[in-house]
Amino acid sequence: MLESAELSESECEALLRAGIVGRVAVSTPDGPHIVPVNYAVVDSRVVVRTTPYSVLGSNARGAVLAFEVDGFDHERQRGWSVVARGRSEVLGDAEDLEQVRKVWEPRPWASGTRSLYVAIAWTTISGRRLGSGWDPVSTLPTRRLV
Amino acid sequence: MLESAELSESECEALLRAGIVGRVAVSTPDGPHIVPVNYAVVDSRVVVRTTPYSVLGSNARGAVLAFEVDGFDHERQRGWSVVARGRSEVLGDAEDLEQVRKVWEPRPWASGTRSLYVAIAWTTISGRRLGSGWDPVSTLPTRRLV
Repeated sequence: MLESAELSESECEALLRAGIVGRVAVSTPDGPHIVPVNYAVVDSRVVVRTTPYSVLGSNARGAVLAFEVDGFDHERQRGWSVVARGRSEVLGDAEDLEQVRKVWEPRPWASGTRSLYVAIAWTTISGRRLGSGWDPVSTLPTRRLV
Repeated sequence: MLESAELSESECEALLRAGIVGRVAVSTPDGPHIVPVNYAVVDSRVVVRTTPYSVLGSNARGAVLAFEVDGFDHERQRGWSVVARGRSEVLGDAEDLEQVRKVWEPRPWASGTRSLYVAIAWTTISGRRLGSGWDPVSTLPTRRLV
């Protein structure tokens, strides 16, 4: 078994910016939900796309959300995770949307129209890793090239 | 881009039972949190181990939780996810604990004492996959052998 250690804020941010798939936790009237999503980091915001009537579309607007990315090396039983938390905002401003699309159009893998852009401007970010002497970024199967 | 399709309840359950790492979402006074965990499925309950003063130890007892597992094939941009939801219970009964340890001792990868066993008896389970013609179980890097 391996020692768990905190990641620095800059390590957390680097891993968050490099990822493509993450998970949003949102509180709903019938308890918390988790929704896996494609995402992009634009400036200091996690941006995801959804539909107005989805779990996120119905519950995430203006709410505090938690967003998680992780990577695991099952063979060596080690891994890392990063959680960013903050209040979400639906992007409605044309200039804002243009900026998001310019830097990175969050491209969902799934087909279907996702007209709602939800941005999480995180106020806290923290992460952990199991074990030392290895690069957490190495567990990312694909990395966003920026 | 690929079509998203619902997984059947039995597919969801098979994937949930095969996994080793998942994520718990829990509501806290300052919003939802996500915590990655090692887990095991015992009978029809997801069992995780934690410490009394952790985010889970402080907020998850007797609360409705969401538990998520997923697998992604980044090269082909496809994947699956399963979410099980239900009220949690701290296992305190000696017989209950013995049963859990007999079937599977949830072995955390991280070192440290995790004396609290939290069981989520799910009341709903649902999942989705992107694309067809492939086996979601194939994306599991390691499978629990039962």
